[in-house]
Amino acid sequence: MIQLSLIGIGTGNPEHVTLAAVRALNDAELILLPRKGEGKSDLVDLRRLLCRDLLEASSRTRVVEFDLPQRDGRADYLGAVDDWHEAIAGVWAELMATHLPEGGRVGMLIWGDPSLYDSSLRIAGRLREAGQALEIRVEPGITSLQVLTAEHRIPLNALAEPVQITTGRRLRERGWPDDAASVAVMLDSGGAFASLPPEGLYIWWGAYLGMDKQCLIDGWLEEVAASIIEQRAALRERHGWIMDVYLLRRM
Amino acid sequence: MIQLSLIGIGTGNPEHVTLAAVRALNDAELILLPRKGEGKSDLVDLRRLLCRDLLEASSRTRVVEFDLPQRDGRADYLGAVDDWHEAIAGVWAELMATHLPEGGRVGMLIWGDPSLYDSSLRIAGRLREAGQALEIRVEPGITSLQVLTAEHRIPLNALAEPVQITTGRRLRERGWPDDAASVAVMLDSGGAFASLPPEGLYIWWGAYLGMDKQCLIDGWLEEVAASIIEQRAALRERHGWIMDVYLLRRM
Ligand SMILES: C[S@@+](CC[C@H](N)C(=O)[O-])C[C@H]1O[C@@H](n2cnc3c(N)ncnc32)[C@H](O)[C@@H]1O
Ligand SMILES: C[S@@+](CC[C@H](N)C(=O)[O-])C[C@H]1O[C@@H](n2cnc3c(N)ncnc32)[C@H](O)[C@@H]1O
Repeated sequence: MIQLSLIGIGTGNPEHVTLAAVRALNDAELILLPRKGEGKSDLVDLRRLLCRDLLEASSRTRVVEFDLPQRDGRADYLGAVDDWHEAIAGVWAELMATHLPEGGRVGMLIWGDPSLYDSSLRIAGRLREAGQALEIRVEPGITSLQVLTAEHRIPLNALAEPVQITTGRRLRERGWPDDAASVAVMLDSGGAFASLPPEGLYIWWGAYLGMDKQCLIDGWLEEVAASIIEQRAALRERHGWIMDVYLLRRM
Repeated sequence: MIQLSLIGIGTGNPEHVTLAAVRALNDAELILLPRKGEGKSDLVDLRRLLCRDLLEASSRTRVVEFDLPQRDGRADYLGAVDDWHEAIAGVWAELMATHLPEGGRVGMLIWGDPSLYDSSLRIAGRLREAGQALEIRVEPGITSLQVLTAEHRIPLNALAEPVQITTGRRLRERGWPDDAASVAVMLDSGGAFASLPPEGLYIWWGAYLGMDKQCLIDGWLEEVAASIIEQRAALRERHGWIMDVYLLRRM
């Protein structure tokens, strides 16, 4: 029997981990730490740093790094994701069999919160369907969206109003969703907000949230859209990668 | 000059505070701790417990409790909220003037995350508009919605799909929002999900999340709606108050 803890670690600020996450890290016998492709090594570095700083000397946790399979870039998005999850589940199973042949407690450090646009729960579900005896636990973590609102010192919702959380892809395809005064956009490959009629929309944008290189811009969409797009391209060029998220509100 | 930190503390589990929140608590010179009306004393107790357990002996933080003004129950909801916020801003201003006449660092413990259906940022904005020199900081905290998904071990969103976060009131008035496969409902005075045609909807429900008396139910809405309503009434009766939140997904 494997007990798998998916441990939310926040999105860049090492102090955003919770006390429960620190405890879960120290309780694990094995931590699986994925190395992502080149360029995004800052993200792996945060995980390494957390393991180094938060694992107590008395804990017997072993940290094992592994190469994450790459997703192929084919047009059939859902199909590609499906194959990718299958490949990752295979790698997890192998690592668990190698390093904990008798079963035991495995921890994985999940960017932000495991519930938000993250596949670990789905991949763990596959493992179980494939016959692995698996108990899953989740430790919540601070999401990029929460760091965005905290750093801009704004509420997510307008008073008593709903909020839609969506993706850049979806915003481009469908435009502004009905029934929502506020729309938060994640996983945007760049500037999906520019596809909206900008009148009356305010934007709060943030990149590398929680990190030293964090960058914030806010303003009426009409006035700041072009500079966000420019800034984003420049930052991406400078750092080799970018992650950004933003909140739009009709006002 | 007052530096006001709004510190997210999670929603019941004291281990859900972040390391940054612990630091902010200890850095404050004054913590203002609202006593809510009778019945909800569990919520005040968590705040007292966090102050007791997390404030280090070396910290010079003073904790001052105060009575929160009550909102009047008149039908004009937004008007009543407006008056209420104004009254709270007045109380905050008085407390700061009394206990930190030269200015300084004030901390407030905010339930969950300060960005999500919480008024402290708006109230702080009023203080500033009223002429108070105020620097605002926000420490993100784990929301009730994250504890819901963590405890049910589910993702918030369906794969690459949007999520709407809304209120019970809104769900009753407008029904299922367009453009969202998943809808999270907060601030429901009870069973707003029963106003929806239940076919094809799955519900994950949770009350007192993070606390010892936590209660979870999930299932197809058709099959579990009645028992959630029953359970909710019984729990409310037993404990004198209830807070619940749920996620609905079209599947
Ligand atoms: C695969 S999702 C994972 C989200 C994560 N589970 C969370 O809770 O924030 C990745 C997306 O999250 C957002 N994101 C994550 N970390 C970020 C950061 N440090 N700064 C800005 N956006 C970030 C971006 O929109 C990015 O495209
Ligand atoms: C005024 S809002 C504040 C939300 C809070 N800022 C957060 O981040 O969760 C209160 C609503 O949050 C939800 N809630 C807060 N704490 C909860 C808990 N421990 N269990 C279930 N629901 C909770 C309920 O829907 C409740 O009506």
